Amino acid sequence: MTKILVLHGPNLNLLGRREPEVYGDQTLESINEDINALGQQLGFKLDFFQSNHEGHLVDQIHESLGVYDWIVLNAGALTHYSYALRDAISSVQIPTIEVHLSNIQAREEFRSRSVIAPVCFGQICGFGSLSYLLALYAIFEQEGFSNDK
Amino acid sequence: MTKILVLHGPNLNLLGRREPEVYGDQTLESINEDINALGQQLGFKLDFFQSNHEGHLVDQIHESLGVYDWIVLNAGALTHYSYALRDAISSVQIPTIEVHLSNIQAREEFRSRSVIAPVCFGQICGFGSLSYLLALYAIFEQEGFSNDK
Amino acid sequence: MTKILVLHGPNLNLLGRREPEVYGDQTLESINEDINALGQQLGFKLDFFQSNHEGHLVDQIHESLGVYDWIVLNAGALTHYSYALRDAISSVQIPTIEVHLSNIQAREEFRSRSVIAPVCFGQICGFGSLSYLLALYAIFEQEGFSNDK
Amino acid sequence: MTKILVLHGPNLNLLGRREPEVYGDQTLESINEDINALGQQLGFKLDFFQSNHEGHLVDQIHESLGVYDWIVLNAGALTHYSYALRDAISSVQIPTIEVHLSNIQAREEFRSRSVIAPVCFGQICGFGSLSYLLALYAIFEQEGFSNDK
Amino acid sequence: MTKILVLHGPNLNLLGRREPEVYGDQTLESINEDINALGQQLGFKLDFFQSNHEGHLVDQIHESLGVYDWIVLNAGALTHYSYALRDAISSVQIPTIEVHLSNIQAREEFRSRSVIAPVCFGQICGFGSLSYLLALYAIFEQEGFSNDK
Amino acid sequence: MTKILVLHGPNLNLLGRREPEVYGDQTLESINEDINALGQQLGFKLDFFQSNHEGHLVDQIHESLGVYDWIVLNAGALTHYSYALRDAISSVQIPTIEVHLSNIQAREEFRSRSVIAPVCFGQICGFGSLSYLLALYAIFEQEGFSNDK
Amino acid sequence: MTKILVLHGPNLNLLGRREPEVYGDQTLESINEDINALGQQLGFKLDFFQSNHEGHLVDQIHESLGVYDWIVLNAGALTHYSYALRDAISSVQIPTIEVHLSNIQAREEFRSRSVIAPVCFGQICGFGSLSYLLALYAIFEQEGFSNDK
Amino acid sequence: MTKILVLHGPNLNLLGRREPEVYGDQTLESINEDINALGQQLGFKLDFFQSNHEGHLVDQIHESLGVYDWIVLNAGALTHYSYALRDAISSVQIPTIEVHLSNIQAREEFRSRSVIAPVCFGQICGFGSLSYLLALYAIFEQEGFSNDK
Amino acid sequence: MTKILVLHGPNLNLLGRREPEVYGDQTLESINEDINALGQQLGFKLDFFQSNHEGHLVDQIHESLGVYDWIVLNAGALTHYSYALRDAISSVQIPTIEVHLSNIQAREEFRSRSVIAPVCFGQICGFGSLSYLLALYAIFEQEGFSNDK
Amino acid sequence: MTKILVLHGPNLNLLGRREPEVYGDQTLESINEDINALGQQLGFKLDFFQSNHEGHLVDQIHESLGVYDWIVLNAGALTHYSYALRDAISSVQIPTIEVHLSNIQAREEFRSRSVIAPVCFGQICGFGSLSYLLALYAIFEQEGFSNDK
Amino acid sequence: MTKILVLHGPNLNLLGRREPEVYGDQTLESINEDINALGQQLGFKLDFFQSNHEGHLVDQIHESLGVYDWIVLNAGALTHYSYALRDAISSVQIPTIEVHLSNIQAREEFRSRSVIAPVCFGQICGFGSLSYLLALYAIFEQEGFSNDK
Amino acid sequence: MTKILVLHGPNLNLLGRREPEVYGDQTLESINEDINALGQQLGFKLDFFQSNHEGHLVDQIHESLGVYDWIVLNAGALTHYSYALRDAISSVQIPTIEVHLSNIQAREEFRSRSVIAPVCFGQICGFGSLSYLLALYAIFEQEGFSNDK
Repeated sequence: MTKILVLHGPNLNLLGRREPEVYGDQTLESINEDINALGQQLGFKLDFFQSNHEGHLVDQIHESLGVYDWIVLNAGALTHYSYALRDAISSVQIPTIEVHLSNIQAREEFRSRSVIAPVCFGQICGFGSLSYLLALYAIFEQEGFSNDK
Repeated sequence: MTKILVLHGPNLNLLGRREPEVYGDQTLESINEDINALGQQLGFKLDFFQSNHEGHLVDQIHESLGVYDWIVLNAGALTHYSYALRDAISSVQIPTIEVHLSNIQAREEFRSRSVIAPVCFGQICGFGSLSYLLALYAIFEQEGFSNDK
Repeated sequence: MTKILVLHGPNLNLLGRREPEVYGDQTLESINEDINALGQQLGFKLDFFQSNHEGHLVDQIHESLGVYDWIVLNAGALTHYSYALRDAISSVQIPTIEVHLSNIQAREEFRSRSVIAPVCFGQICGFGSLSYLLALYAIFEQEGFSNDK
Repeated sequence: MTKILVLHGPNLNLLGRREPEVYGDQTLESINEDINALGQQLGFKLDFFQSNHEGHLVDQIHESLGVYDWIVLNAGALTHYSYALRDAISSVQIPTIEVHLSNIQAREEFRSRSVIAPVCFGQICGFGSLSYLLALYAIFEQEGFSNDK
Repeated sequence: MTKILVLHGPNLNLLGRREPEVYGDQTLESINEDINALGQQLGFKLDFFQSNHEGHLVDQIHESLGVYDWIVLNAGALTHYSYALRDAISSVQIPTIEVHLSNIQAREEFRSRSVIAPVCFGQICGFGSLSYLLALYAIFEQEGFSNDK
Repeated sequence: MTKILVLHGPNLNLLGRREPEVYGDQTLESINEDINALGQQLGFKLDFFQSNHEGHLVDQIHESLGVYDWIVLNAGALTHYSYALRDAISSVQIPTIEVHLSNIQAREEFRSRSVIAPVCFGQICGFGSLSYLLALYAIFEQEGFSNDK
Repeated sequence: MTKILVLHGPNLNLLGRREPEVYGDQTLESINEDINALGQQLGFKLDFFQSNHEGHLVDQIHESLGVYDWIVLNAGALTHYSYALRDAISSVQIPTIEVHLSNIQAREEFRSRSVIAPVCFGQICGFGSLSYLLALYAIFEQEGFSNDK
Repeated sequence: MTKILVLHGPNLNLLGRREPEVYGDQTLESINEDINALGQQLGFKLDFFQSNHEGHLVDQIHESLGVYDWIVLNAGALTHYSYALRDAISSVQIPTIEVHLSNIQAREEFRSRSVIAPVCFGQICGFGSLSYLLALYAIFEQEGFSNDK
Repeated sequence: MTKILVLHGPNLNLLGRREPEVYGDQTLESINEDINALGQQLGFKLDFFQSNHEGHLVDQIHESLGVYDWIVLNAGALTHYSYALRDAISSVQIPTIEVHLSNIQAREEFRSRSVIAPVCFGQICGFGSLSYLLALYAIFEQEGFSNDK
Repeated sequence: MTKILVLHGPNLNLLGRREPEVYGDQTLESINEDINALGQQLGFKLDFFQSNHEGHLVDQIHESLGVYDWIVLNAGALTHYSYALRDAISSVQIPTIEVHLSNIQAREEFRSRSVIAPVCFGQICGFGSLSYLLALYAIFEQEGFSNDK
Repeated sequence: MTKILVLHGPNLNLLGRREPEVYGDQTLESINEDINALGQQLGFKLDFFQSNHEGHLVDQIHESLGVYDWIVLNAGALTHYSYALRDAISSVQIPTIEVHLSNIQAREEFRSRSVIAPVCFGQICGFGSLSYLLALYAIFEQEGFSNDK
Repeated sequence: MTKILVLHGPNLNLLGRREPEVYGDQTLESINEDINALGQQLGFKLDFFQSNHEGHLVDQIHESLGVYDWIVLNAGALTHYSYALRDAISSVQIPTIEVHLSNIQAREEFRSRSVIAPVCFGQICGFGSLSYLLALYAIFEQEGFSNDK
């Protein structure tokens, strides 16, 4: 059974409580429930982790070694400068899908650069909480592709 | 019934015939069949268009006005410099999902910049031909979301 | 009798049909009529050509050799990257007036650079469809100046 | 009756006396007469002011509040660095047309950047003294457009 | 009663113990006492928090939601790269005053850029520990202004 | 008795008369009165000077030598390019506090650079007219600190 | 028998008819004849194609798959921005020699960058129409080298 | 007796378990043992600390005040952006030797910049785990040099 | 008899009164006397002008037309941004020697760029007040050279 | 009889002895023999010179004045920074053909810039040792062209 | 027996004779003696070479082929621009350790870039003459490592 | 008696023999004679040295230690990249005057940067061979100034 870690970075714990016009009015808990529901439907085992601490996210990625098959990562603002997160991903070599709620290339200039993108499997952004669900579909199809071969 | 135009830019007609190690061994015809199959399953009406001409792609986007509800666009190398394509998308205001077979931020420097991203709804890249299918899932869920409200 | 080619680039065919708050609500046909009316008044023979294809615009400029005395060119988004258009203008050496509907230096950063400006006679921008009419006045006066000498 | 202030920046007082091959052999006085002649023909009331002092130009723009309906401004070299002039224009919110004798994008690199363009109504450059006359035509037509509505 | 959180970033805990010639010889405790004394005088309720951990500072800002009316923030070196801190401030939308002991634009090049400034209410820097006190005065006056209206 | 020169740069004379949504509805005269009131309360002797001329501001700074103990300077748009002003401040070596009404790092890119900051004592920005008052408080406290030693 | 496609990009059709002082007075037809004459002498089968359309050039490169052994390409101004052309060349993997009439590094700054160079076999520029002939010699020798091994 | 803190930054805890072709197959524990063995031989007292948390590393550097004579620091990816770490080092003024396993200037562009180098005593990189041992030799010799004087 | 205008820009009036360690302890009056003394010795007629106003300097340059044979110009900080001064010099075409007291390329980065250098005859910097005297020697020799021919 | 100097820059003396996969397995001597053979066939008189010293290459170019009609120059790594070499070529004004074994625009970023290109007649790169032979053909044809006229 | 060439670049011959506060008071001869002493202790055969000529250093590296097992190189200021030296090192493929007396990243901006670093085995800088000794230790340990395997 | 070394860099030996329109028609020998004549008149002892080799120039500067009081240096194109020359000058600490025949800031962009300027006493450029003579005057006056004190 495919095991997936869903990792949320800084400030995502505030979702739904502030700035609904930008990020929608769903809380992170509600988003996690939606992700979990789809995950179960697709036959996945999912765990969730959120932290505002770069170090905790790095630790969590390390501890995923041998535990998870995929990581779905929304690194929040760390996307734009955390080379430590980048090295963590490339160290454990667990395929990681980068997701963003908003279309990061359509916002402030500094958000158009992702320092983690070069070590990620793929990127999905701009679909709100749906971005996470698409990542699950991607894993589902990808696993199917792999199993076929 | 939701109508979707799948638009393929320059050089995508060669898919499957050259460089399979980079782009996989599926032909564009075969990818289109897969997209169509999923589209029908999700209840979509799909059309396909490929061109190596920036002008034809712009024309096609214009002609989509009042015909299609969504555009799924892989602009190929035009992604990186065609402001004309960007203006076409923002002129017709049909929601457009940008897809790429490869993870464009993990390749040459010039590919990390998308001049069309700021006017697109969202971006999916790095999943090979699966990127297109995820775009369909995205539209499916998005439409559902909209209908719910 | 002075002969003038009015050349419209990509996406200008959609004028008046979309985004009236940005580009006004006049269609290109209506703008052409206004230009033509003023042209006749000033004693000019005018032709009009619009294309979304860089190549057609280049072809058209070539075919203007020996046919037109002036070109009035709104190159649309090609303004910002089409060195081919630039070379076409400098090859045929027909005096060309660059016009834009909007004030391109007051919009996105990438629009402030015109790669064709260095080979054009002059530039008029920001006056909406009036920009074209001013170009006709400019030619009228310019011709007068030349005739005087 | 529409009132217009024609504002000439640094070094324009030397027109016609030096470098005729670049700037033509008309003096500023003669240019002003031409502008005035056309202005009267179009039913405008015009005043003229030239200064080599950034501060005087800013003062003059301030004093135009409630006096002039339009400003026609050739800021000379201040075009390229005077943020004070820019703020003056945006403070009084009198529609201002930026004119230049030469095609500034076809000369030295530093001349291709106008720091005042983003707060101006439109820009006309490259037509020699005719640039000013075109600005008058622009105001004439613009006023007409406005009156029609 | 106005409640204010005074937030000190990395390395500020060492104040007064090292480099007195740069940062003065006051310890952070002593500075906090001065701030508190003025705060009481102005009728404020103040709390203090220092951390060398970006994540703790982000957590603390989140927990300020509904608790504090203002944040006075000296983010230390995080000022120059922590987009996570920036997003935290803009998420909770508590008005935040950025303070610095030294005049950051008069030091190394990298210190002249503040990535949090665009989401802060105002900035005070260069007055040593007095910078914090001025922030209190600013809040005092600002509150008065608001109450008047 | 501490003597302070309050120096206002280009366009600040228009305060309160235009763009109240940006700069508030207080006139410069009214702001000066508020500054003067607080100054008297704090035991300062204040003089005020406004000019749209870089040269006059430089002259005024020179004439402050041996007359004023502090300068409070809002250089307006000159902040971003006037190296002459910068040299004037560093020549007279009168401690100068840079103030701005708006948070200059939260506006256009060009406003985030202050060429005078490196020679100023400190910087206060973003508090509207209150920025000036905070500068007085800063001088008051700073003088106290100095007197204590 | 070695088969070679000689591909001419935008504006090269005007050769000999305009600007002889820059590009010589030979027409493209005459150049093609010279190339053909040398080609026959060297035992090559040559075809010629010119277009002002990026898309046609891409199409033509695609259709060369399995037909031509070498491409000799003068991409004109497309050299400096057409990543689509670059991808076309790298897709078909037909060895391509980049030629230019003029020494592109001795002209305007923007001409010193070739976006297609990294995927070409070699580059010959600055020899006028002779550049094409040298490309033929290169192929002749290269084929010889290969045959020897 | 000279006391040295060996500080390992993010992701170094994974050494030897992943990517042996890049970082060798020694675990961090084994490397620490080697360092310790050489340290004892040279008469040093050594302590070791690893963290993936920037804040913990800053804390640890602060706590080294008055405890350690030297710090040997491999800051991992924080090397490239952690100005907080830089300030920590310059605050405590304990001589710090920067080490890296790989030759950071021979890898990705972003790794060639070290923001902590300007405040470090010296830098040793590219020798794998030997880099740490060389740092010990450096301290040994340096201490000897100092003792001689 | 050769007539020379010695033009001093902003802040040079303060020479000798402030910062003697940087600019020496000579006042501008004393420097002018030295220049005048040498000028008389060399048979020149000299006039002196200092202003902190860019506009006055531009005016003065204009008024030099037909009056002076050479200008010796120390533009102070205007050197680095006053394109108006540059245009004034190139308009009147009086040969102008740029002088600086200090070696401007050995100071802050922004001082290494002179926007007026490209239109000046030559540049002398770094010799303190002697820089002016060398300019006179240069004119003396240059005139001699010219007379010889 | 046309006389040609073939000039090889730094490190080219090692050809064939190291890195054959990059530069081929021909020694410089063998390449020179091939060049000489072709040169004799074409009726040229050739001399050869190699040096790792920029100064010797400059000296050699100077000594070519009045001796050689053409220079064929592979400047090796000096291509990218030796402005002295550039000045030498432009001083003697002997037409110089720049050759490179590899396609310098397809390698490291720094190799894509040639500081000598703007003063050379033409450039040939990417054909291995054949690049030199093509330069001879170029001279042969060029001389023929010249003789024809 | 391991043979090592110690190579000193421009200006290092002056060591100890000038600027002792920067580079210490040891002469190059004395440093060489120290290096030699340690080298003998470690069982190495060492040779020394210093030159102010880039070309001689390149020659010397070439002549090291088959003679030396390692090169210890302090390239002095050539570090920052000599691509010829870089190519020499990569041509002979003798492992080379880059050393610097001072911490080059803590000095002028231009010294932070080493163009030879990407082709060197490792880098040691900031330890004064000790940097060379550490390089010997590095070789000693490295050789041991290699021998063990 | 003041001893001066006049040092000429690459390509200056060709003076007068090529490009008289740029560099005048005087040979270097003739210029040296003029310099010598003036030197004797001013009571100086002068030596002359020219080389196209960076290394020789560095050697020569080293050998000037204790021999010459001043160096007059025209480094030719080395001015723009030779950090080795810069270090040589700053090592020997002989006051050095940088001279150039042409106004280097009025030519190609790359010539506007002098890497040796920051370590030179002063700079004189644009006066042709007269630049050298002015350097002698400068030394004469400077020596006088020093003697007076």
